[in-house]
Amino acid sequence: MKSLKQKILTDGSVISNTVLKVDTFLNHQIDPKLMADIGKEFAHRFAGKSITKILTLESSGIAPAMMTAMELSVPLVFARKKKSVTMNEDCYIADVYSFTKKETNQITVSKKFLSPEDQVLIIDDFLANGEAALGLYQLIQQAKATTVGFGMVIEKSFQPGREKLLLTGLPVESLARIESLANGMVRFIEHEEMSVK
Amino acid sequence: MKSLKQKILTDGSVISNTVLKVDTFLNHQIDPKLMADIGKEFAHRFAGKSITKILTLESSGIAPAMMTAMELSVPLVFARKKKSVTMNEDCYIADVYSFTKKETNQITVSKKFLSPEDQVLIIDDFLANGEAALGLYQLIQQAKATTVGFGMVIEKSFQPGREKLLLTGLPVESLARIESLANGMVRFIEHEEMSVK
Repeated sequence: MKSLKQKILTDGSVISNTVLKVDTFLNHQIDPKLMADIGKEFAHRFAGKSITKILTLESSGIAPAMMTAMELSVPLVFARKKKSVTMNEDCYIADVYSFTKKETNQITVSKKFLSPEDQVLIIDDFLANGEAALGLYQLIQQAKATTVGFGMVIEKSFQPGREKLLLTGLPVESLARIESLANGMVRFIEHEEMSVK
Repeated sequence: MKSLKQKILTDGSVISNTVLKVDTFLNHQIDPKLMADIGKEFAHRFAGKSITKILTLESSGIAPAMMTAMELSVPLVFARKKKSVTMNEDCYIADVYSFTKKETNQITVSKKFLSPEDQVLIIDDFLANGEAALGLYQLIQQAKATTVGFGMVIEKSFQPGREKLLLTGLPVESLARIESLANGMVRFIEHEEMSVK
């Protein structure tokens, strides 16, 4: 997605070989026009799938997921992060390990918002190790609902998340795929068709 | 705002005399069409103010704030909640006491996203005791920026938040003002003009 890649180049900051900061437009300050374009792009990439719901994780996933839900005219559900959840029969719960924070959090979603009839598209802001996306996938599985695919705004393709998600057999659509952050420079994977399987 | 009040009546649940649950459309599952209408309504109520930025608090404020930012074509910034923040010269920090959780959290925003030139509209999902909104107001004051007003989706008018916010001298616009939740029923404040001062 050209406008997103351009934005990453102009406004993103490479903090290290593995960390890209995009807090000026994606996960602290948010550019609404870009979010609208992201929503349109995800809707386009998953066109023809009968999506009934968008699932994301608080907080940074909410803005792009919201605009995708808007484009597809379906509800958005965001899972909540908790340090530790006591067993609760009203919620689906999954463990998500954070490599950044080196801790396991639990993510939860109320059982009433995922049902076996649902066809759910998972949206998140970053794909790195895939832990958050797989946690969301587990919540959908617990509900015996169907996952339609994964829509990720920025993918750090040099980390193993994409491969892990592909093991589910589901399509993974990332709007900007970053091959490398070496030498303080963002290099995208170029010349690549990212059509939905 | 008629469509919002209707939604509260049909989909909200009165849990107690003070608690209204709206997790089916506002703060867990989100209705994107309603959020778009909310964004339009806030833009209308604060029309003519030279707003440069929307400020909200993660997570439930993000969706309505996002749609307001979209309508006004300005960036959205969401403050983050933390249990406790070590002094950090890159951030503005304010204390927010939660009456529900009976604990004080800190909310933070990066200094780079609020500057003295900014005219900031505060948006949040609920106005009850006003602590969160006043915390956001403090962040804006620390930045020597201007607060334009407070836009609240649902106001529990029987709690003291509105009065506290009005002490700032700024306009408070709530899209649904609830007079009472007694006897398991939502009663709105009726016949009221809520024009921007």
